[in-house]
Amino acid sequence: MELVPFDDVRLAARRIEGKAHRTPLLTSRTLDRLARARLYLKMECFQRTGSFKFRGATNAVAQLPEAVRRQGVLTFSSGNHAQALAAACQAEGVPAVIVMPNDAPRVKLEATRGYGAEVVLFDPDETRREALGAQIAEERGLTVVPPFDHPHIVAGQGTAALEAWEDAGPFDWVVVPCGGGGLMGGTSVVSKALGPGCRVVGVEPEAGDDFRRSLEAGQIVRVHNPQTIADGARTPSPGNLTFAMAQEYVDEVTTVDDGSLVGACRLLWERCKCVVEPTGALALAAVLEGRVRPGGRVLVLVSGGNVDLASAAGWLQ
Amino acid sequence: MELVPFDDVRLAARRIEGKAHRTPLLTSRTLDRLARARLYLKMECFQRTGSFKFRGATNAVAQLPEAVRRQGVLTFSSGNHAQALAAACQAEGVPAVIVMPNDAPRVKLEATRGYGAEVVLFDPDETRREALGAQIAEERGLTVVPPFDHPHIVAGQGTAALEAWEDAGPFDWVVVPCGGGGLMGGTSVVSKALGPGCRVVGVEPEAGDDFRRSLEAGQIVRVHNPQTIADGARTPSPGNLTFAMAQEYVDEVTTVDDGSLVGACRLLWERCKCVVEPTGALALAAVLEGRVRPGGRVLVLVSGGNVDLASAAGWLQ
Repeated sequence: MELVPFDDVRLAARRIEGKAHRTPLLTSRTLDRLARARLYLKMECFQRTGSFKFRGATNAVAQLPEAVRRQGVLTFSSGNHAQALAAACQAEGVPAVIVMPNDAPRVKLEATRGYGAEVVLFDPDETRREALGAQIAEERGLTVVPPFDHPHIVAGQGTAALEAWEDAGPFDWVVVPCGGGGLMGGTSVVSKALGPGCRVVGVEPEAGDDFRRSLEAGQIVRVHNPQTIADGARTPSPGNLTFAMAQEYVDEVTTVDDGSLVGACRLLWERCKCVVEPTGALALAAVLEGRVRPGGRVLVLVSGGNVDLASAAGWLQ
Repeated sequence: MELVPFDDVRLAARRIEGKAHRTPLLTSRTLDRLARARLYLKMECFQRTGSFKFRGATNAVAQLPEAVRRQGVLTFSSGNHAQALAAACQAEGVPAVIVMPNDAPRVKLEATRGYGAEVVLFDPDETRREALGAQIAEERGLTVVPPFDHPHIVAGQGTAALEAWEDAGPFDWVVVPCGGGGLMGGTSVVSKALGPGCRVVGVEPEAGDDFRRSLEAGQIVRVHNPQTIADGARTPSPGNLTFAMAQEYVDEVTTVDDGSLVGACRLLWERCKCVVEPTGALALAAVLEGRVRPGGRVLVLVSGGNVDLASAAGWLQ
């Protein structure tokens, strides 16, 4: 398996410049006191479309051959990759079809349609999204842009960490949310290239610990339909590429429970005034709960902020 | 009545440098499309202590005589000025007593105590805060730092607009929330100095339209115990200084209802991922509701983000 080299992340950064936002790094005395370390939070909730996914999607769309750009692309996603690909395609005039579960949060559904994409809904209890996506793609001649397991996606996601290292590096620790492993893959290759001694830790929801299990087993392990408030990390298994990159570049994958995610979100909303979704708070929650005990200068990826306020009102109380 | 000159705002900016944050200006394609103008939102929710009030408090504390700094200061505030003065005093080692209503939001109460201040609670149905504050101050030899009607406070609050003009000016319109009028006073003197042709509009909650009434009457008018979700703008009347500055520098004061404030907050939370309190969204709500119809480049002050998440959960649904 050929891994994504650091230079591809550098090229991706040039490719997405002026299209994606260079997001801010947030520092907070309150968080530093709680974590007993100097935290730098890379705030991808402020990225276009509300998550880091816009980076990978933009990098992937920019490299599509002309014929594919005319015909259009398709993806399957519970939300953030859907919005990201829709917006990246809209910016480049590429038709996009998004296959989404019919229980996806309303705000993500509306946003995806708002970016001009055609949305095809399916019942996740009855249909596997990969199979349905492949079928529609074949019927209509569309090219699939997968949510994480693709070198252009992984390279694009790595640009978030690259910006952070440029703006405030070096870091002693890097803590990153882990769903399908695209952000973790890109982040880890950048961090090990720029700081070989730095420790990279991925964080999954306790109910969806497919990466931790897979790394322990030395092969890809599937978990069944994980139930967690971290809806962006409900992926059942690592991808082939993202698993190989985790084996090579990630020192450890740990987990946090949903209660810790709510606590971390509450802190970010209440004290830092930033709307972060539960998945986006995975890495910070692990630091605050002591699942990771980093010292020195710590980069914490905060991956997104797409949360349905109506449902958030339920767990905020 | 001697107004605050623009040069005092410039001096305040030097005085608070390195103590207060230089807050970001937020731009959003979604908001621009809704407003049909180019909006620059000055995000004081990211200011230290969660609102612009830290600017005025820091500027005021920096100018206290040595004897006063040793003895301590006192203020009365429903929340944001309380936290701001407490934090400014903590940074300078000045004792602070804060007189707060016993129905102030929990998060503001806890934060104020967290900054090391002594909090004295009172029942707002039974006691006038000014009278109680004056009594305690006299008994304990404390100097009152009022929440808005003081030249050092007004000059400090003006530094938010000064930063915005430096970072992205010139502006054709400036729209600013109006409670006691300190932020509006400082913002308007800066804006008229740097852009004499620019139009400055203040925005109050409909239920607490003391500035609009006062400007129409040509003298200070009191409103009784205004009930609005904009808890930072429940001030019953303009101050002498802030009223005189409004007469001199503000072109118009308009109002919005609580429903519009909730709508504007929802947009800021959901689309921009920024936690803004209802008072903080006054100016944006007026633009989105068409109570102000600005064109060209528009500076919109977003004054704070201190909201109790438990109560927000109620109006977010």
